[in-house]
Amino acid sequence: MDSGGFCDVNYHSGSSDDELVDISEVTVDFSEDVPPLDRDYSAGHCKAEWRPNNSPKLMDLLDDTVSGIGTYEDFNTIDWVREKSKDRDRHREIANKSKQSTVALLFSISDAFSGWLLMLLIGLMSGALAGGIDIAAHWMTDLKEGVCLNGFWFNHEHCCWASNETTFQERDKCPQWKSWAELMIGVSEGPGLYVVNYFMYMCWALLFAFLAVILVRAFAPYACGSGIPEIKTILSGFIIRGYLGKWTLIIKTITLVLAVSSGLSLGKEGPLVHVACCCANILCHFFTKYRRNEAKKREVLSAASAVGVSVAFGAPIGGVLFSLEEVSYYFPLKTLWRSFFAALVAAFTLRSINPFGNSRLVLFYVEFHTPWHLLELIPFVLLGIFGGLWGAFFIRANIAWCRLRKNTSLGRYPVLEVVVVALLTALLAFPIEYTKMSSSELISELFNDCGLLDSSKLCGYTSNGGSTSGSVNATAANGLGARLAGPGLYTAMWQLVLALVLKMVFTVVTFGMKVPSGLFIPSMAVGAIAGRLLGVCMEQLAIRHHEQDIFRGWCSPGADCITPGLYAMVGAAACLGGVTRMTVSLVVIMFELTGGLEYIVPLMAAAMTSKWVADALGRESIYEAHIRLNGYPFLEAKEEFRHKTLATDVMRPRRGDPPLSVLTESEMTVEEVERLIADTTYSGFPVVISQQSPRLVGFVLRRDLVISLENARRHQEGVVSMSPVLFTECDPPLSPSAPPAVKLRSILDLSPFTVTVHTPMEIVVDIFRKLGLRQCLVIHNGRLLGIITKKDILKHMAQMANRDPDSILFN
Amino acid sequence: MDSGGFCDVNYHSGSSDDELVDISEVTVDFSEDVPPLDRDYSAGHCKAEWRPNNSPKLMDLLDDTVSGIGTYEDFNTIDWVREKSKDRDRHREIANKSKQSTVALLFSISDAFSGWLLMLLIGLMSGALAGGIDIAAHWMTDLKEGVCLNGFWFNHEHCCWASNETTFQERDKCPQWKSWAELMIGVSEGPGLYVVNYFMYMCWALLFAFLAVILVRAFAPYACGSGIPEIKTILSGFIIRGYLGKWTLIIKTITLVLAVSSGLSLGKEGPLVHVACCCANILCHFFTKYRRNEAKKREVLSAASAVGVSVAFGAPIGGVLFSLEEVSYYFPLKTLWRSFFAALVAAFTLRSINPFGNSRLVLFYVEFHTPWHLLELIPFVLLGIFGGLWGAFFIRANIAWCRLRKNTSLGRYPVLEVVVVALLTALLAFPIEYTKMSSSELISELFNDCGLLDSSKLCGYTSNGGSTSGSVNATAANGLGARLAGPGLYTAMWQLVLALVLKMVFTVVTFGMKVPSGLFIPSMAVGAIAGRLLGVCMEQLAIRHHEQDIFRGWCSPGADCITPGLYAMVGAAACLGGVTRMTVSLVVIMFELTGGLEYIVPLMAAAMTSKWVADALGRESIYEAHIRLNGYPFLEAKEEFRHKTLATDVMRPRRGDPPLSVLTESEMTVEEVERLIADTTYSGFPVVISQQSPRLVGFVLRRDLVISLENARRHQEGVVSMSPVLFTECDPPLSPSAPPAVKLRSILDLSPFTVTVHTPMEIVVDIFRKLGLRQCLVIHNGRLLGIITKKDILKHMAQMANRDPDSILFN
Repeated sequence: MDSGGFCDVNYHSGSSDDELVDISEVTVDFSEDVPPLDRDYSAGHCKAEWRPNNSPKLMDLLDDTVSGIGTYEDFNTIDWVREKSKDRDRHREIANKSKQSTVALLFSISDAFSGWLLMLLIGLMSGALAGGIDIAAHWMTDLKEGVCLNGFWFNHEHCCWASNETTFQERDKCPQWKSWAELMIGVSEGPGLYVVNYFMYMCWALLFAFLAVILVRAFAPYACGSGIPEIKTILSGFIIRGYLGKWTLIIKTITLVLAVSSGLSLGKEGPLVHVACCCANILCHFFTKYRRNEAKKREVLSAASAVGVSVAFGAPIGGVLFSLEEVSYYFPLKTLWRSFFAALVAAFTLRSINPFGNSRLVLFYVEFHTPWHLLELIPFVLLGIFGGLWGAFFIRANIAWCRLRKNTSLGRYPVLEVVVVALLTALLAFPIEYTKMSSSELISELFNDCGLLDSSKLCGYTSNGGSTSGSVNATAANGLGARLAGPGLYTAMWQLVLALVLKMVFTVVTFGMKVPSGLFIPSMAVGAIAGRLLGVCMEQLAIRHHEQDIFRGWCSPGADCITPGLYAMVGAAACLGGVTRMTVSLVVIMFELTGGLEYIVPLMAAAMTSKWVADALGRESIYEAHIRLNGYPFLEAKEEFRHKTLATDVMRPRRGDPPLSVLTESEMTVEEVERLIADTTYSGFPVVISQQSPRLVGFVLRRDLVISLENARRHQEGVVSMSPVLFTECDPPLSPSAPPAVKLRSILDLSPFTVTVHTPMEIVVDIFRKLGLRQCLVIHNGRLLGIITKKDILKHMAQMANRDPDSILFN
Repeated sequence: MDSGGFCDVNYHSGSSDDELVDISEVTVDFSEDVPPLDRDYSAGHCKAEWRPNNSPKLMDLLDDTVSGIGTYEDFNTIDWVREKSKDRDRHREIANKSKQSTVALLFSISDAFSGWLLMLLIGLMSGALAGGIDIAAHWMTDLKEGVCLNGFWFNHEHCCWASNETTFQERDKCPQWKSWAELMIGVSEGPGLYVVNYFMYMCWALLFAFLAVILVRAFAPYACGSGIPEIKTILSGFIIRGYLGKWTLIIKTITLVLAVSSGLSLGKEGPLVHVACCCANILCHFFTKYRRNEAKKREVLSAASAVGVSVAFGAPIGGVLFSLEEVSYYFPLKTLWRSFFAALVAAFTLRSINPFGNSRLVLFYVEFHTPWHLLELIPFVLLGIFGGLWGAFFIRANIAWCRLRKNTSLGRYPVLEVVVVALLTALLAFPIEYTKMSSSELISELFNDCGLLDSSKLCGYTSNGGSTSGSVNATAANGLGARLAGPGLYTAMWQLVLALVLKMVFTVVTFGMKVPSGLFIPSMAVGAIAGRLLGVCMEQLAIRHHEQDIFRGWCSPGADCITPGLYAMVGAAACLGGVTRMTVSLVVIMFELTGGLEYIVPLMAAAMTSKWVADALGRESIYEAHIRLNGYPFLEAKEEFRHKTLATDVMRPRRGDPPLSVLTESEMTVEEVERLIADTTYSGFPVVISQQSPRLVGFVLRRDLVISLENARRHQEGVVSMSPVLFTECDPPLSPSAPPAVKLRSILDLSPFTVTVHTPMEIVVDIFRKLGLRQCLVIHNGRLLGIITKKDILKHMAQMANRDPDSILFN
């Protein structure tokens, strides 16, 4: 071997163009491959003879023998580049081994397919859990009202299935189902019944809410909330240990059922994403490939969020797009395909459980029969504006409330808070039909287009409300159509207005309490109520003024020209869009509910308007607002950084600060390094050639350094405080009496990312986002000047945003 | 101003944390902000007095006054980072101005919404063009057979609409529609009719094909092929001038109609993507924001490819996913939402034109009534394997054929080639019913589930074929079901087998000829034929052996338990997947055709199998294969680079090469720089402090350098060959007799991307992909050693792939 070449490379280097190198050889002769421009490049190389006997010691460290090297502490950010490199190394190893034996080949094939197996398992497990949650929540919601005599485990609907009443309304009152009043005081009519039922309803609601909050507090504090802000943060590369653990899963599943059944103004859709991610994280433990690699694990979690939405709405495509648009940070195409697979498996698992008893995949199945007219876009856009306003209002009010909770003594009594809110909710919800029923039932009813046999008050039209046998044609003949509002509808309208106000207030207060709480359903409920109200108004307007020019085009007398259910759906989409700022995924989820391309345009118009209005009033979605409220280190990937600052304005140290803490390649002793570690809290240190010539050699992580030094002190003979610490490729000549050196080149990252001082921050931010960096070194003309960490960037962005708040208009 | 600070920064720098700076001020006092570690940093700064009078000259250059700076030459790669910076600068300028006047505010709002307007226009224009193409192709296809007496501009179907025949079959033979033989020799039966029709069919086919190829050759050579490989390359950042120009649009639209009508084995779906991209590119000219920024333009083109697929299949969501998965390189979320909008507008424009006369949005509307059974997954997977094999075979055969065309004298006679292929196609296609009809009609018929009134031979079951009045129940009663194959079906089967072989051969030969040619439809046709064949076999098997265990579970006697149309659809998906390697988008497009989530699982099973099988036999899709065949500089974003090489192995110069051509900051004269430009062909040069100390200062592009030097020679007084060229921040002290210096710091990129020699190539490749770099400089301990360009990376990747071909198994 020539002494002029590299003497010990970390990476088994391939070779230049024209020579094949046996990759199993540890060292490769590069003596001739030194690039010509490198005039004093060889100064950094060994002048000493090649000594093969010191090679193994360095190689040992490469094989992860020192446990803990390459792992992360809690509440730290992962290094995507390093994680991906690790995975590629692992992969190369398997690929190399697979050529040697059949067993290894089989192993490598099973490894290649383990991703699919994992997706299958996540889909099955999440689908089954979602089905269980649906059934349990349905049963417990009904339990608040009464119990089935045939068996207490039947819910109201199942209980009355066997009944042979003909109409839906009568079937609801089947004799097998007894309300609590009927059971307890034996009356089936009168004020006594009402009071006892009211009381029992409140008792059950309180019990469920109390159980939920107690369980969360006692066993899994991470189980509260929707979980989506935290999952977004985790997917962006943050470590929160236990957030996706088995306790969180168990407690979240149980308390979710309790919280939903308690009648609080919350939904199970967001938490289902958390549940699916917990499943994914737990299942990852069975696959080495994913257990040991944080980047790969995040790919799986991205897929799991798609699964969560898929089971929540029965919308697999919408789920995948939700994960892509709203939750994920990196979403490689491979993940897209796998997410889709997992989402489908989950959806079909859920369907085979059939929790809604209608063998439909979707939560709110709707079928509309009347096409919409172009002029109806005006009310749809109005609904969009309402949705945007609601979104902006909700986010501000909720954040203000959460901040109040955080900063005042309110936060110290989470159990009391939940109980009081549950009590108030039950107290006010029971008297109004539309708040008494669960939000999903409410939405279902609001989306529904009135048929001739519908018993709902919302369908209390004169022709239906009066006598169902009354001929539609006869009513149509008097020129006012089949859909003139009757007294039932007027009552319903007033109740809906009340319900709207209540829902709005309670949703603001509820989201963020210490119980699992999603806001998809409450937001949709608000929008659906508003939409239905507007729809009915439009309908009555059209019927009463059908002879006017504006309606004449599309409303012939007697025909159903306006579908209030469609308005409810558009309103729901608008409100959900205003709160979450979803766009494509929102429209696709809604499209999957109806299955008709026909109604995409109204949905899209509302979703677009809603997003624009909400964005104009505040740039952040509710999830981003909560991320900021909690101070998670999340670098938003959607928004561009638009300020004219340079890397030099952001890097540390600033003027006046002590100089950057650096290690030198070969000048420091163990003691000096240990003192530096003790004196600082930085999570990594750049390594330079010397203090006098701060030219960058590499970067070393604090954790790796600490572990390696401890390891050397413990296991390497003769290491004392005065031993030199060497990051050089080869040993410098040491006097024979000197203590043995601690060689740490193996833990040195030889390819740290660098930018120049002149690099605009917009480019730096872009690099951090796209490559997922933890830190980046700043150099000028070859000299190391400073460091920029993800935290510095987040701080800088927050400062710039505060300085220039009105740039939000222009996206 | 303090003389120790930066004296003239290119970027108006923001400021450090705690001081607000008026952004309108050109120079900012940074004297105190020099980072402390920078010991000899000030060496690069002015020691001279600050001279405000030389500032404007430098500033001039910043404002793009020298035309051409910042643009690209043909067949060059764009610099994404620079383009994005340019856009952000533009944006900042507008945002700043908007605070000053109402007009500017209105302008800034209109600018913000111009993207949406552009999308709307693209949607409208593409939808209208697609509708026109559909109608024209339909009419011209029918023209090959005959003409309508009511008006030559009616196609067969429209011609017979007025006819009052009752059955579909009889309506097809309405008296208004005359075949050529009937018109020319007046017979309506016998061999004469057949011969004359055969002859006319061939004449028309030849004429159409000849016109198509002549037009392409004469006016727009870029109009040939599907265009998707080139669009992929353009979207990845390559410049091909004229590829998306107005001539290409006009000629492609016309010749596409001709080529489709000629009966060649090609489709219009791929070319529609090209047409939509041409529309987008042309419409971009009306919006400064997009005209002058190559990165922004590519965002629009990404949306346009979604529009293309949306109008091709009537599948807006599928189109967006196709663009995301298959075509686009960078796909920011903003683009996702806009693409979706444009795709929807286009789909609805197309529907309002109603080219298929059925007011359906989709090309092949299907409705199935029978659910599929789990055991049917076996034949579906078989279809997937067939699709994968077909895909791999097609790609290899087609590439071999294209290479033959390229390397032999065949390539010199493109017109002859097209005419001969058209002649052969027509000659062999006419006698067989399923090749005579257009591919889309064929697919439609194959997808179709047989109803009771279907006259197609494919529905020639005994109960239908014999007498339509024969009671289905009676046939079912004999235990063999309604669907026992009759003689009609047997004939159809044989014809389908022949059609399958012909389609396969002609598709291989046709794709790549000098006419517009897509392969979606031919691939789908191959798959649909194979699927239908298998479906019918399965069906007959199930009917004849319905008493066996395997079928007893789901096939009760007399029931339709197998839908051959579904098999055709699954087969079509599998073959399309094998050729294009689409996954999610394929399934979603197919889902949008049927509208039922029910059938996603079979489609997904087939698509997955097909992709696995095809990938195992060859990693590239047909588009990637054509990109490689044509040598486009396309850096595949999907595949990971898995080799253990380092930046030092790839960078130029290699050993033995002359040293890297660099410019120095202040030591060179105009003449020396011009000689360097003349002697080399590099598209850019690094600027270092001095030859002796090759520490990187920045990077300058050849084009910018040439333009600036020419400009200086022409317009700057006293510039001679001996004038120094300065890239320094401030002027070094010059003797008064020296000629004036040419100051070029403004064209210097002060933040070139750098990696160290030790950086693994996998990371370098990742950086290039994610940031869209053109080049990257390689440094070691602060010294510039070499450069890596996109081309070097592509070459290296090709070499490594050739060396290690069996790594393809593991994705």
